[in-house]
Amino acid sequence: MKLTAHQIEQFDRDGYLFFPSIFTPAEMKVLLDEVPKLYALRRPENVREKDSEAVRTNFAAHLYSEPFARLARHPRMVEPVVQLFDEQVYMHQFKINGKMAFAGDVWQWHQDYGTWMNDDLMPTARAMNVAIFLDEVNEFNGPLMFIPGSHKQGALPAGHDTSTTSYPLWTIDNDAIRKLVDKGGIVAPKGPAGSMILFHGCLVHASTANLSPWNRVAVYLSLCAVSNHIRRFKRPEYIAHRDFTPIAPLADDCLLKPYPVDLPWKDGTPSSAYETEKAA
Amino acid sequence: MKLTAHQIEQFDRDGYLFFPSIFTPAEMKVLLDEVPKLYALRRPENVREKDSEAVRTNFAAHLYSEPFARLARHPRMVEPVVQLFDEQVYMHQFKINGKMAFAGDVWQWHQDYGTWMNDDLMPTARAMNVAIFLDEVNEFNGPLMFIPGSHKQGALPAGHDTSTTSYPLWTIDNDAIRKLVDKGGIVAPKGPAGSMILFHGCLVHASTANLSPWNRVAVYLSLCAVSNHIRRFKRPEYIAHRDFTPIAPLADDCLLKPYPVDLPWKDGTPSSAYETEKAA
Repeated sequence: MKLTAHQIEQFDRDGYLFFPSIFTPAEMKVLLDEVPKLYALRRPENVREKDSEAVRTNFAAHLYSEPFARLARHPRMVEPVVQLFDEQVYMHQFKINGKMAFAGDVWQWHQDYGTWMNDDLMPTARAMNVAIFLDEVNEFNGPLMFIPGSHKQGALPAGHDTSTTSYPLWTIDNDAIRKLVDKGGIVAPKGPAGSMILFHGCLVHASTANLSPWNRVAVYLSLCAVSNHIRRFKRPEYIAHRDFTPIAPLADDCLLKPYPVDLPWKDGTPSSAYETEKAA
Repeated sequence: MKLTAHQIEQFDRDGYLFFPSIFTPAEMKVLLDEVPKLYALRRPENVREKDSEAVRTNFAAHLYSEPFARLARHPRMVEPVVQLFDEQVYMHQFKINGKMAFAGDVWQWHQDYGTWMNDDLMPTARAMNVAIFLDEVNEFNGPLMFIPGSHKQGALPAGHDTSTTSYPLWTIDNDAIRKLVDKGGIVAPKGPAGSMILFHGCLVHASTANLSPWNRVAVYLSLCAVSNHIRRFKRPEYIAHRDFTPIAPLADDCLLKPYPVDLPWKDGTPSSAYETEKAA
């Protein structure tokens, strides 16, 4: 899995790359079958929606679920990121966002790097977001919306929104969004389960509520260049990871064969993961 | 403006008809220019969003705004409805829904006839919804979503949702929506300002939040066959009208020329409009 010169240019210009159906239905089924079990867990890693019991986001499943631990080491996902950064990467954040049928709430306009910088003291934006669709994404189930080119702005001023949804977020004000959209428009990549998006940590994005009867479960991995690791442990470890070991990719068939993986949090979240406000 | 046999058949099957750009930009400008003035009014006819000052819906502008009074008598809107019902119609409800940039909130899945039946004791579904786009409607600013064919179910069981948004609505439960969508799917007609949709009072519809920087102002008129007039005045008169006089259409150029119209509520809402719970 090597990006072409054209793809690298496109990523630089637009801030994202879309790979429809890069994983097969059989590979996605292995992951999707695991989601209800994970969402049923009463662990701090499950953040539920404001107005329902539906899971909004599940954190760090790669530390306690075999299929997701293998996904976290998948070469089709890791290699293009290593290529773009020309450096090894570690897992900064690992989420399974529900955006469940009828219940999935909005994510306001934000840059992920805003949070990594403000909360985690990540030095630069050399961390990549990867979205992998476990369900089909269509116009009705709350697709990710991007403002192409907005990553060129670097980190934008942001306010900490703690009230709109169940999950606090550093969000960007309406006037700034209006200006960015005037210039770059809005796109919303849609496609079958197994599609993947790579997007820049400074790319401004949002998603609307899911009123449809179709779940829109997606995995969001944030892979950080090792030298760019975070400098402060303000957020719990299940949200912002503290292990900067480079990811060692498995074989390309790792979702379909039982390659052995470590599951250090299999029996629960270690108490050290809750210790916060420490320097890294 | 006569519907073809094919259109009538289509309406019967799907429950809606879409007419892109049936009004010109110049005609829509006359209306759109009036909206900020109407939304600035401190009248009971303006219902604001739960979390902002943005107007969610403005009622009965045709009784106090000249351009909207002329729209309420527009032949391109009235004639196809009269044709479908084979009877004269009166104005049951007149709304300008804001769905404003960044602020427009969801409308949950519902049938309009559910409300007309439950609250207003309207005998049958012989009342037509007409949506007229004052702004472009695109995939990002919260388009109306329809479940084609769902009008065939007649009035569905509904619960009174008084908490999700600032406006109470008789909404349909998730299991019923899932079944209807399995059969009919979801469509969301999109198009330039000046487009019009006719849709059946029993067609199940919803719309999601508008996170985009583009307003999505639309006029929703509900035209009821005169013999099917409501039997109870439970809701204020500015929401559910009590004047069953048939609409007399003006000329086709009525949005561009100052045809005289009555504006009975120009100086305010009459106190009688608040009297409720009376038999019609």
